[in-house]
Amino acid sequence: MPTTEEIHLVRRPNGVPAPADFALVEAPLADTEDGQVLVEALWMSVDPYMRPRLDADQPLNGPLLGGGIGRVVQSRNTKFPEGALVRHGAGFRKRFVSSGKGLAVLTPDPDLSLSVYLHALGGTGLTAYGGLLETGALKDGEQVFISTAAGAVGSVAAQIAKIKGCYVVGSTGSAEKAAWLRDELNLDAVINYKTEPLAERLAQVTPNGIDLYFENVGGGHLDAALPRMNVRGRIPVCGMISTYNGGGEGVRNLFALIYGRIRMEGFVASDFGHLSADFLREMTGWVKSGQLKYQETVLQGFGRAPEGLIGLFKGDNLGKMLIQISD
Amino acid sequence: MPTTEEIHLVRRPNGVPAPADFALVEAPLADTEDGQVLVEALWMSVDPYMRPRLDADQPLNGPLLGGGIGRVVQSRNTKFPEGALVRHGAGFRKRFVSSGKGLAVLTPDPDLSLSVYLHALGGTGLTAYGGLLETGALKDGEQVFISTAAGAVGSVAAQIAKIKGCYVVGSTGSAEKAAWLRDELNLDAVINYKTEPLAERLAQVTPNGIDLYFENVGGGHLDAALPRMNVRGRIPVCGMISTYNGGGEGVRNLFALIYGRIRMEGFVASDFGHLSADFLREMTGWVKSGQLKYQETVLQGFGRAPEGLIGLFKGDNLGKMLIQISD
Repeated sequence: MPTTEEIHLVRRPNGVPAPADFALVEAPLADTEDGQVLVEALWMSVDPYMRPRLDADQPLNGPLLGGGIGRVVQSRNTKFPEGALVRHGAGFRKRFVSSGKGLAVLTPDPDLSLSVYLHALGGTGLTAYGGLLETGALKDGEQVFISTAAGAVGSVAAQIAKIKGCYVVGSTGSAEKAAWLRDELNLDAVINYKTEPLAERLAQVTPNGIDLYFENVGGGHLDAALPRMNVRGRIPVCGMISTYNGGGEGVRNLFALIYGRIRMEGFVASDFGHLSADFLREMTGWVKSGQLKYQETVLQGFGRAPEGLIGLFKGDNLGKMLIQISD
Repeated sequence: MPTTEEIHLVRRPNGVPAPADFALVEAPLADTEDGQVLVEALWMSVDPYMRPRLDADQPLNGPLLGGGIGRVVQSRNTKFPEGALVRHGAGFRKRFVSSGKGLAVLTPDPDLSLSVYLHALGGTGLTAYGGLLETGALKDGEQVFISTAAGAVGSVAAQIAKIKGCYVVGSTGSAEKAAWLRDELNLDAVINYKTEPLAERLAQVTPNGIDLYFENVGGGHLDAALPRMNVRGRIPVCGMISTYNGGGEGVRNLFALIYGRIRMEGFVASDFGHLSADFLREMTGWVKSGQLKYQETVLQGFGRAPEGLIGLFKGDNLGKMLIQISD
């Protein structure tokens, strides 16, 4: 019987995930039946949101939940012809048989790399676009603060805000990332939260307050932002990476919500399906014109997915963390 | 020259306010000029929101900011004839001269006590009504949790939610208050957070989760509510009394906002001016029919305002804390 490879969670992590929490497993691969396709994985996406799942939703001894881009190598389903590229959410599996459910044919722009459809033009980009424009109701020219602004979501959010004429402040955790935000993305101010006092610097660089704080971090970042929020400010909550591995600081400044009439609201990419046509059209234009830049950290080899996930929480990545399995 | 009495803040409190932070001061009273009226205070309102002001907005050695009901005793302004009852926001002053700015003639329902216009039918009630129905977008029959449900705002919010057919859980800090909520207001479940483990009990009594958490406390209350929130739940933020005297617990469960797409939003009574006609009509009906009950803690004597304010943070009050100056 043919086999495939899968990355399994074999132990629930205690804090930051460790290599021994995962295993590369050889698993049987069923035959492709009528209506089914066999997909070979090309690229996999590694994202911060995967961490909280490891504590609960993610089954033990099953393939890591996640999404990527693959190629149909055998087809008994006319919707997905052999050779077609597909987006999928089938998890960390090198090859897999699918009924087509959860697959979507991808027709990439020939001028763009395939990988960009896993970040700027994929769920990562849609998360930034919808969180900023719909949940955050961003208006042109507003005062914006974005945490982990050099990250995959943050860097898209920061650049959309710049395109919309906003004053944009970003935080990040290394000098290299800070330089990229300042010199390449032209943010108005950048704070290295590992070397600078965050709350104090944020107050200095937001003389007109903050209308929209795009929240990726929680904890001390949220406490620094809250006292700077303008009346009727919005805090779209995309993530709280400071809390994902347990611990983290409690938030003490929520009182500021009251007199500021601040709205804080969570969202996930799947809320924004109705925006996806506009998103793809606008974003493709911005990426092709060079108005929207990105960085990728690509690990080569299927087995390196755990290393990629662990690296996210050490800040090892510049921009989007990706696993490339084959061309 | 005639004089008046005023309650002044003479020192910024360190934590819970102390009697020595305040002073009863004799102050000169100007003559009533053309266009002005002289008002004699009858009732004063003492509210939790006054505490944070003492750290900043409240001037030292000036009358405590606040509102009440008074009677016009001299008038040179035809809008406010002698004998008229007025609501005012002129602060803790026994008698004062006013241009009429900030005064509103009050025509009480003859079947109701005057004091009810300082709570259920005043700013307190409007805060509950607007926070629940507008900011919180309450729908009939939802699952509702209200912190400090025996307080002036909380008890109105709890009863409006019951009138709207909701399942209502309230928290409070004494057995006496818990009994009132259970036996008089017919709440579906009551938690005494001083004697019961809040998070555990809240989970037990909200088998269908929480659609709307009316937030008056912050800290541990918010951390207990967040994991119980249903998808698209709302947390209108009315107050965070646990933080007003400094210290308080940091909030650790905000991560729940993301996957729940929870909306948390601050508000103040003055946001709801456009609701006041509907509010007064509906609430007057509910109070007169006995559907909406209230409790008052009345301290007799102008000089007892500091005692009333300090008592709020000790939970000395049953329902609304009021100072009665004269009939």
